[in-house]
Amino acid sequence: MKQALAFDIGGTKIYSTVIDESGKLLQEPEKFATPKTIDEIKNILISQINKYEQQVDVIAIATAGAVNNENTAVIGSTGNLVEGYYTINFQGLSKKRVFLENDANAAAWAEYKIGASRGAKVSVMLTLGTGVGGGIIIDNKLLKGKSGAAGEMHFKMYPDKRRKCSCGSWDCYEAYASGTALKITAEEMLNNKNVTTYDVVEGVKKGDKKMIDVLNRWQNDITIGIMGLANIFDPDCVVLSGSMAQFVDIKTIEEKVNADIVTTPTSIRLATAGNYSGMIGAALLAMEAV
Amino acid sequence: MKQALAFDIGGTKIYSTVIDESGKLLQEPEKFATPKTIDEIKNILISQINKYEQQVDVIAIATAGAVNNENTAVIGSTGNLVEGYYTINFQGLSKKRVFLENDANAAAWAEYKIGASRGAKVSVMLTLGTGVGGGIIIDNKLLKGKSGAAGEMHFKMYPDKRRKCSCGSWDCYEAYASGTALKITAEEMLNNKNVTTYDVVEGVKKGDKKMIDVLNRWQNDITIGIMGLANIFDPDCVVLSGSMAQFVDIKTIEEKVNADIVTTPTSIRLATAGNYSGMIGAALLAMEAV
Repeated sequence: MKQALAFDIGGTKIYSTVIDESGKLLQEPEKFATPKTIDEIKNILISQINKYEQQVDVIAIATAGAVNNENTAVIGSTGNLVEGYYTINFQGLSKKRVFLENDANAAAWAEYKIGASRGAKVSVMLTLGTGVGGGIIIDNKLLKGKSGAAGEMHFKMYPDKRRKCSCGSWDCYEAYASGTALKITAEEMLNNKNVTTYDVVEGVKKGDKKMIDVLNRWQNDITIGIMGLANIFDPDCVVLSGSMAQFVDIKTIEEKVNADIVTTPTSIRLATAGNYSGMIGAALLAMEAV
Repeated sequence: MKQALAFDIGGTKIYSTVIDESGKLLQEPEKFATPKTIDEIKNILISQINKYEQQVDVIAIATAGAVNNENTAVIGSTGNLVEGYYTINFQGLSKKRVFLENDANAAAWAEYKIGASRGAKVSVMLTLGTGVGGGIIIDNKLLKGKSGAAGEMHFKMYPDKRRKCSCGSWDCYEAYASGTALKITAEEMLNNKNVTTYDVVEGVKKGDKKMIDVLNRWQNDITIGIMGLANIFDPDCVVLSGSMAQFVDIKTIEEKVNADIVTTPTSIRLATAGNYSGMIGAALLAMEAV
């Protein structure tokens, strides 16, 4: 059975482990704080590659940022990683093939192969975290677009410039559906700059009416974006993953979406492939490619 | 060279002609007012089929409404056609195969094969008419979704219920980007219920500042939807077709879209496959299928 040395390179942490073709982790993942220089990032990758290169068939990297259609390079900059990150020559780090995929795409692939969207002809995955990631799978293939950058959840919720988005534009879905957005929705509704996401979810647990209203507004914004995606893609299912997905009411979202759309009913599901789905998806894609 | 007897069945008109594999119309299309009963619609189809069935390889129908993934039936009702239209047994009308495709999808396919999006890995077509149709082609294949209903341009422009959409929901893209929407935008901005789409486009021609403002607002709404689609699909191009496409400024839309998106630049183009692109696309798809 093939094996992949897998990495997940994010803005704050880098994870690494070895994964087999069934998607099984062959060891407890190692965890590193993401360094602030390109050389230090490369050093982490190289030290792991030196340890496992002989044993594995391929190096698989789930990374922040868009990855090209050849799965060899990160295209353009990624806000959360060190400047110039995309200039790293990943293939130069190993004699084995180094295969990259965007982390949200990789996680969507893991859900499709071993998780919540198994068997779906068309599935949409939304990763609700600091931002909102998107991964769309159609007929057994990731939607990558002409350059590899497809699946960006930056469609507008308002046409008239209300809330700045992390992308530099205004009022994107990410600016209303992310974890960061929940804090901003709370700030706006409660007129309190100091309220945190934690305050909201703790308040909801305690039955605080105001915090429940905040969470409902945020969940409604999430729902509205899913309605649009369901009309565009007519997916079998929409999978919600990421640290914030645990705070939404899946059944309520599903009911509202299916009451509104003009396509056929879709299933809304929580992700099941776990915290390391990015590495698992990248590893499965990489092992298919070699 | 194969030939198809092609139909375009819309809410007000039915067209029919014979088309060859190069997409060429072999005769001037015949035109019928769309009847108000299923039997009369069937009679028009049957009379044309009786005339041309021997000569052609397949019957190709571009139709209003979503078409299933087997291209054999219309799924669900279509607002503009007689009730129960979807119950027609199209295959029963001919001994030759009867192949159906949604009209916007078929037109998108014509643009891809002989028109403005030739060679595109990923293309999005928007048909701006009474409503807004969508046809998306990815890697040489129409995006159909799990049931065939994908490509519906009913994502929301506002989350808070401002303008009713033809689909029964609120604030969909169609309700801001269609020809009907241009009239409503004019009504709202000019506070005049009697203003028509014709008044707006004639006013713009004469340099009427208020009408130019109306047209710009409508064009800006069109642009905002394209931004979202460009971030979701990362397409090579977005093709605008339909009777209202002539009134937009393609270059302005392209500049605004590319200044805003987080994916890579896309090209905005006017459709070039002509008024019969629905029949041409359906015919080309049908001839590929037999």
